[in-house]
Order: sequence, then structure tokens, then C-alpha cells
Amino acid sequence: VSSRTAGPEILRLIDLLAKLPGLGPRSARRAALHLLKKPDQLLNQLAAALADAADKVVACSICANFDTVNPCSICSAPGRDASIICAVEEVGDLWAMERSGVFRGRYHVVGGTLSALDGIGPDQLNISKLVERAGSGEVREVILALNATVDGQTTAHYITDRLSHLPVKVTRLAHGVPVGGELDHLDDGTIAAAMASRR
Amino acid sequence: VSSRTAGPEILRLIDLLAKLPGLGPRSARRAALHLLKKPDQLLNQLAAALADAADKVVACSICANFDTVNPCSICSAPGRDASIICAVEEVGDLWAMERSGVFRGRYHVVGGTLSALDGIGPDQLNISKLVERAGSGEVREVILALNATVDGQTTAHYITDRLSHLPVKVTRLAHGVPVGGELDHLDDGTIAAAMASRR
Repeated sequence: VSSRTAGPEILRLIDLLAKLPGLGPRSARRAALHLLKKPDQLLNQLAAALADAADKVVACSICANFDTVNPCSICSAPGRDASIICAVEEVGDLWAMERSGVFRGRYHVVGGTLSALDGIGPDQLNISKLVERAGSGEVREVILALNATVDGQTTAHYITDRLSHLPVKVTRLAHGVPVGGELDHLDDGTIAAAMASRR
Repeated sequence: VSSRTAGPEILRLIDLLAKLPGLGPRSARRAALHLLKKPDQLLNQLAAALADAADKVVACSICANFDTVNPCSICSAPGRDASIICAVEEVGDLWAMERSGVFRGRYHVVGGTLSALDGIGPDQLNISKLVERAGSGEVREVILALNATVDGQTTAHYITDRLSHLPVKVTRLAHGVPVGGELDHLDDGTIAAAMASRR
């Protein structure tokens, strides 16, 4: 879309929508037109929802989860076990853990992974705060539920080192065949891990 | 994401993002987290851009193009030929025509296609206004640049009927092999049309 065809307001909207993951320039144009076609049902409501989120949602100062209260509702829930911390890469991973419903402790959002290529070192991540929490005396186990990628596992290894002087147990999620997964579609590393951990 | 994990503001944002074409529930979650991770660079800016668009962008009262002025900048451009109207389904199609740079007349956005299945009849579309414009005496040709789908061609046929009593030429875009297109990937109808219109 050229500036001759559409006004700067529309171009700017398309540019910003194209920055969302999953939307490219072409789908951002479609999304912008979809919004403009439904000003009352969608455009105004999304504008209000974004302003509302910008206004109210904050990162929890303890675990970096997103919530409208600080500390977040998980960190302040009395029914959750404060002696186990599950460290995840992103808030989306925390949501995935919560959907599974198997974990009743607290979380720590690391905020990404170490990556020499992208210039992300320990200081760009939320790791020191995790070490501090783990050393508070209240915590007995840290579960490193980082993604099973190279960067995720490098980061898990680094965090394990940082926690090694503390009297806490450091565990990781088990590797294996996903429930419902077919062996034929799994990589060799997963099959080898599942075989090694067979019960 | 359950309401226990994320606040209503986040859930509402995800719900609205999931209504955009190209985003499902999963990618809407990712998009919402991406926005929340970048409050200043993205979230606030997108909220402002949406509010700005909602505030300023209107559908042109002549051709239904989106613009911040009414009539739109194409309808009011003195350099464009007012005697040729190119009818398109959506504003996105108008943009595509403008990108090609081959058309110097004016447009008319029909706003969709006739569809018995979706209950869309002539009154839900911007067709009467097109007939009115075509009968103003100023117009000598109407190009029906609707999509080459069944609904698009049904709609083109209907519009042709509605224009038949007027002294205007009604034309359609030619069918044929897309430039750069491979015969092997084309459907039989396109190949037949390209063969019939060979030069």
C-alpha cells in the first residue's frame, strides 16, 4: 500500500500489525482492513483492550509473570507451594504449565534463553533474581522447565551452575515420547532419551 | 489460558486478537504476549494507532474506499479519469490495483459478493450506488474487477444486468496465465480461458 492510496493512519496501523508474530505485511493489510470494516465490533474494542492492558498489566516483581496485580496472583496464592519454583522461558510457557494443571508450586519467568548469536547474556535474563529466590531458605526444589532446544538446555545448564552452591534440588522435565505421539514422527534424540529413561 | 492464570484484561485482548484474519487462539496468545513484552515499542503504539484509525478513517461516501478525507483522495484527485469506474470487491483489491499502477480512473468498492449461502443479497452490497454513478452521464465504462471466484463472477453478472439499460460499456478483467505462472500449477479453467483468448 503506498501513501498515495491509503492515509498515514492506515499505513501506520499496517506497519504495527506486521510486527506481531504470525502476521507478515500481507496478512497485516488484511487484518487492518478487517478492523476498519468493523469499527464498532472490533476496531474500537481492540483499541480499548490494548489501552486497558497497557494501563493495568504489569510484570510481577517476584516471578515476572504478567498480571494486573503485583505480586501476581500465583505468587500471592496461599494454596500454592512456595518451596518449589518452576523456571520457564516465557509467560506463554507458564500458561502451558498451568493448562496442564499438574504443578502447584510457584514460577519464575527467565525471559528467554542465553544466546551468543543474539548477544543475550545472563544479565539480559531474569536469572540473578531466581538465584536470590532459591537462596532465601524457603525453597527446596527448582524445576528447570526450559524448552528442549539447544539454547534452552544451555540456559538450564548455566542456571544449574549458578544454583550449585545452594542447598536446593535442581531438576529438569523428563524427555520422552509425547503422549499420543508416534515413534515414526519423533527425532532420534527423543527416542534415545525415552529408551534410556524407560520404566 | 484460564481466568485463574491471566487476568480478564489479558484474556479479552487474546479473544479480540483471535478475531483477526490469520490469527487463531494459539497465535493470538503469542501476539498478546509479544505486545505485553514490549509495552512502549509496540503495545502503546498499536493502541494509539488503532484509536487514531477509529477516529479518523472513514469510508468514502462515493466509492467506499477507506481514507481520512471524504470524498477519498482518489475520488477527489483531479488527474484521474472520472469516466471509467473500476468496481472491486474490497478495499484490499483497490490497493492491489493501485500497486499495479495500470489504472488511472476511479473506483467503486462493492463490499463483498452476492452469496445465497451467507444470506448476502444486493441490498447488503454497495451496488445501487454504483448503478447511480454509472448513470450520471459522466461515466462511459465500468470495469468489473471482481475476483475470479464463483461468487465474484455471479456478482459481476448481476451488476452487468443492473447496468444493461445504461449507455455505458461494461468490461471484465481478462482470464489467463498469471505472469510468471507455470502451466502445471494452473487449473483447467484458467488454461482453457488462456487458450480461448490467445493472441
